Amino acid sequence: MVGKAIAFRLNELGHHVLLGTRSVQETLEKPLKAGQESMASWLATATGIQLATFENAAAEAEIVFNCTSGQASLAALQAAGTKNLAGKVIVDIANPLDFSKGMPPTLNPVNDDSLGEQIQRAFPESRVVKTLNTMTATVMVNPTLLRGPHTVFLSGNDTSAKEKVKELLSQFGWKAENTLDLGDITTARGTEMFLPLWIRMWGALGTAQMNIHIQR
Amino acid sequence: MVGKAIAFRLNELGHHVLLGTRSVQETLEKPLKAGQESMASWLATATGIQLATFENAAAEAEIVFNCTSGQASLAALQAAGTKNLAGKVIVDIANPLDFSKGMPPTLNPVNDDSLGEQIQRAFPESRVVKTLNTMTATVMVNPTLLRGPHTVFLSGNDTSAKEKVKELLSQFGWKAENTLDLGDITTARGTEMFLPLWIRMWGALGTAQMNIHIQR
Repeated sequence: MVGKAIAFRLNELGHHVLLGTRSVQETLEKPLKAGQESMASWLATATGIQLATFENAAAEAEIVFNCTSGQASLAALQAAGTKNLAGKVIVDIANPLDFSKGMPPTLNPVNDDSLGEQIQRAFPESRVVKTLNTMTATVMVNPTLLRGPHTVFLSGNDTSAKEKVKELLSQFGWKAENTLDLGDITTARGTEMFLPLWIRMWGALGTAQMNIHIQR
Repeated sequence: MVGKAIAFRLNELGHHVLLGTRSVQETLEKPLKAGQESMASWLATATGIQLATFENAAAEAEIVFNCTSGQASLAALQAAGTKNLAGKVIVDIANPLDFSKGMPPTLNPVNDDSLGEQIQRAFPESRVVKTLNTMTATVMVNPTLLRGPHTVFLSGNDTSAKEKVKELLSQFGWKAENTLDLGDITTARGTEMFLPLWIRMWGALGTAQMNIHIQR
């Protein structure tokens, strides 16, 4: 859902988008549950977006968005290939939600590590920027859907990578005053550990169409 | 700091306040670091607030506020005494920050437990309400210090206890529409796990005089 939302919006903004997957053919032929839209039908609505293997998508990319399930992110990025990711910005939107102990999910890693840090350690030649992981997909790519100001956070070790990501956020509709750089990639612990509160806000409010604004 | 802020505000609102401590005499005679105000001098500014042992404070109380350091909360409440806390509302404002691994602090417990739940399990005859733990003390007791709306969360198993706490929050200046009941005491995991983000927001903004507002 997050990958489709990001891909659709980037494509709409004129960027060339490859959607990485383990197997293009399996993704196109995947049996659907009731109410699900096939990938082929979705692709028909988003002219310009192409499916590719993780490897081919990463090889061609200037910027890579990690929109995979948090527990699968490292494997997906390994499939993309260290050399295909070297020197590139990895925008990490995933959260390390662990559903193995039931609902609501817990986090793994948590507290003294984060998925953002794990990815940066696993791909030291890439420049990881954690962002957008504190809200639902529709709000990520269209912040003006909400009635007033609200905040997006960034974490990363590389200032120029964060500048590049801020420029994309600005294209999505994020104003500079609502974009908060928390510091290096260890600050991803903060935004990932917000998820347990976000999930409970979602439950209490009955909608995911919301985000937090920092009131001063 | 949190205990003094809560005590001062409750006293200002006309409530009778006892500030619990291990030893009244030691607290009054404690050697001060440069710039610190003595408890005796502070008490002189807050006519009506009295020091008492944890035990005596709890015995006389209708409502107990836990404003102790999170790692010391269970011991402080044990000192207050199970029978003195039975049937009473415990407003748990503490966060289980663990400074033993350096700065920034981690949390203990975290992820599949919370301090709020630990207190509720340790004092099953008390009614624990977790609230106010997501912001700095001055904002807790004077929400109108900030320029616009912002949110306070509640977690607890007992609806009437939460109603009682909402009434006190209303006296502090919290509007009902900014008060979000997240559900039972397990939802305290959410608000406690917000602290790692709050600490980094504080660092990035350079001020603790802020809070989050839920933008819809």
